[in-house]
Amino acid sequence: MPNRTIYFISDGTGITAETFGNAILAQFENNMRRIRLPFIDSVDKAHQVVRQINLAAVTEGKRPIVFTTLVNEEVKDVITQGCQGMLLDMFSTFVNPLEEELGIKSNHRIGRFSDISKSQSYTDRIEAINFSLAHDDGQSNVDLEQSDVILVGVSRSGKTPTSLYLAMQYGLKASNYPLIPEDFERKQLPAALLPHRKKIFGLTINPERLSEIRNERRPNSHYASLLNCRNEVAEAESMMRRSGIRWLSTTTKSIEEIATTILQEIQPDRLSY
Amino acid sequence: MPNRTIYFISDGTGITAETFGNAILAQFENNMRRIRLPFIDSVDKAHQVVRQINLAAVTEGKRPIVFTTLVNEEVKDVITQGCQGMLLDMFSTFVNPLEEELGIKSNHRIGRFSDISKSQSYTDRIEAINFSLAHDDGQSNVDLEQSDVILVGVSRSGKTPTSLYLAMQYGLKASNYPLIPEDFERKQLPAALLPHRKKIFGLTINPERLSEIRNERRPNSHYASLLNCRNEVAEAESMMRRSGIRWLSTTTKSIEEIATTILQEIQPDRLSY
Repeated sequence: MPNRTIYFISDGTGITAETFGNAILAQFENNMRRIRLPFIDSVDKAHQVVRQINLAAVTEGKRPIVFTTLVNEEVKDVITQGCQGMLLDMFSTFVNPLEEELGIKSNHRIGRFSDISKSQSYTDRIEAINFSLAHDDGQSNVDLEQSDVILVGVSRSGKTPTSLYLAMQYGLKASNYPLIPEDFERKQLPAALLPHRKKIFGLTINPERLSEIRNERRPNSHYASLLNCRNEVAEAESMMRRSGIRWLSTTTKSIEEIATTILQEIQPDRLSY
Repeated sequence: MPNRTIYFISDGTGITAETFGNAILAQFENNMRRIRLPFIDSVDKAHQVVRQINLAAVTEGKRPIVFTTLVNEEVKDVITQGCQGMLLDMFSTFVNPLEEELGIKSNHRIGRFSDISKSQSYTDRIEAINFSLAHDDGQSNVDLEQSDVILVGVSRSGKTPTSLYLAMQYGLKASNYPLIPEDFERKQLPAALLPHRKKIFGLTINPERLSEIRNERRPNSHYASLLNCRNEVAEAESMMRRSGIRWLSTTTKSIEEIATTILQEIQPDRLSY
């Protein structure tokens, strides 16, 4: 399916249009060209967009697919009337029936992100990112009790990207601690973590996969050897089992799936979207 | 508008349903309770969901709003037939017309994230996150030429969250460098950056806002004083102007808006979604 362009058009960042459009397109085997056109917030820009899309329609001989999350009616009208693409208006499709159901009018607010930068939840989110960075890899125990979630696991089991994702997407203060040979010898979780057991979640990983990942960092090291990985993973899993903390294997999971499972299990009090 | 619950239901993480549903709901002044029900991937779980929603409908005396991105037909049927909520089926609404337009059937792939963990673009994304962490705050010049984007700006102008967002969402290797008094004295960008000018993007910020942010970290310090902030910002802006690099003010912008603008300006070769 060549020669077909997908456009994501928005008055704001276009992130919603793109996220959702890509989810829809994942339902089709395709390799279509994708173009995001953000900040289309004037009639002039709308006319430019129409020209761009109509040119693509002619050049490619197939009408482009156009996902829109436009809120401004004037801008939307220009595109609806002039554009020769297949328009998929993601907002109107759902906003209109919701107006009826809720008995209120939509506020035509442009861009989910355009006025959040001074909001408390945005400030909290930035603070959570800074907190998670400062509490990455057991760097600091300061304010550890402020953590919403504390991840533990052997080195390279996925703790850092997951912590940052939880902070970035959900404004959660996520700390993470590596489980290291000293912990295995003592046969218990790092002492600093013990008072916070309810917030702890463990990540484990298949030793073969772990060895692959570690070999990319430090080829042919003891650290990356399959034998050592097997040993560390076995020790970590038996420690997590003994400590009664919840855990999952990250081997075949994406950050998004890991984060979703953690949220289901830990159910943090504070959760911003 | 009290007493009305919003559900986001998915066979996968529910992130798409929630992201998009929240964007729609931002069009209404509301403070409705939101519940994400991820991994609804069996008929049994579907029946549980139906019971949960119908109970809420009775308790609240208003039918819940239910956003779904279900792919599995059996699961979807259970919910469509049994659920007393207002169903907004985000996938079928667009997938069906797209099947017709593209002349191919959808693959009913469950969860955008469920099989990506072994893909190259996923591995690249994790590597980008690690790269951006290692190149945060001018920590390292190693492999700097691998950066897709290099952010510069005074301390607390938004470089770190933006870098991590670019890595997390787009798999971009984003480095960032603080502009500090030594740079202002020398009146040029840090020497390590000069060969990479095309990838550099500057962030600036209103001095009053900067002083507020810095005061939260180090109250009543010279670092946070309005006088110092004014001075640093003026120096940084004149340096960016002189160097001919592109820049924007982050004062009233969210990470998402900053990132979108950077992508438009820098247009990195590599961009994964």
